[in-house]
Amino acid sequence: MLGRLNHVAIAVKDAEKAAKIYAGAFGAEISGAVPLPEHGVITVFVTLPNTKIEFIQPLGEASPIAKFVERNADGGIHHICYDVPDIIAARDRLIKEGARVLGDGVPRIGAHGKPVLFFHPKDFSGALVEIEQA
Amino acid sequence: MLGRLNHVAIAVKDAEKAAKIYAGAFGAEISGAVPLPEHGVITVFVTLPNTKIEFIQPLGEASPIAKFVERNADGGIHHICYDVPDIIAARDRLIKEGARVLGDGVPRIGAHGKPVLFFHPKDFSGALVEIEQA
Repeated sequence: MLGRLNHVAIAVKDAEKAAKIYAGAFGAEISGAVPLPEHGVITVFVTLPNTKIEFIQPLGEASPIAKFVERNADGGIHHICYDVPDIIAARDRLIKEGARVLGDGVPRIGAHGKPVLFFHPKDFSGALVEIEQA
Repeated sequence: MLGRLNHVAIAVKDAEKAAKIYAGAFGAEISGAVPLPEHGVITVFVTLPNTKIEFIQPLGEASPIAKFVERNADGGIHHICYDVPDIIAARDRLIKEGARVLGDGVPRIGAHGKPVLFFHPKDFSGALVEIEQA
């Protein structure tokens, strides 16, 4: 039921600047900055051979990561995203096991155009967990 | 120069308990608990199709993660580990780009029996970075 690690998201004040150290120091391939106003973030991806790092930067006053970046001035690891084959089945099983889904529990379309849900970090060892329909 | 994402490490008070939610709720494959006294941690791995999650629990009074777990009672994402083909070349390039290596900069043998180095989170968007010779 648990698929690939889709991405690790790191929230920062400046996503392009953050990604550039991966390009410069590691020679990694990085994407351009993509504003996603409906998600309140700007994203820049770092491509690794087996997964990706996603830098996210607050966009707009209602950005869901604004407070996190305020509290973590240097940036910080914000969440881990796992692929699941069936997001409804995964949601129901996680809830049955005691994990708390964030929001109303109805999957919404995430930054990659696929249905996503988030689960409470207290139920996953302090790590905010996103699941995405693969 | 930047290889696979080797693992994401999550530091917790009880690594087996933390991994069990992945086994129970996600049906993921988890390893047994392995004490590594020379590293001051107990590890439990969660196997994903493309990488792994490594739960680490403090072991002994001088554990390098004791303070982190004290500060983060629920646990928290502790570091990200990347494979590199040549750890000395990677270290020198990262230092040249302005990243600060932790300790004396001499690779030591990590939890997987391979040379590793850590770099300062302030130079990587608040994320503690480990590099491991692939």
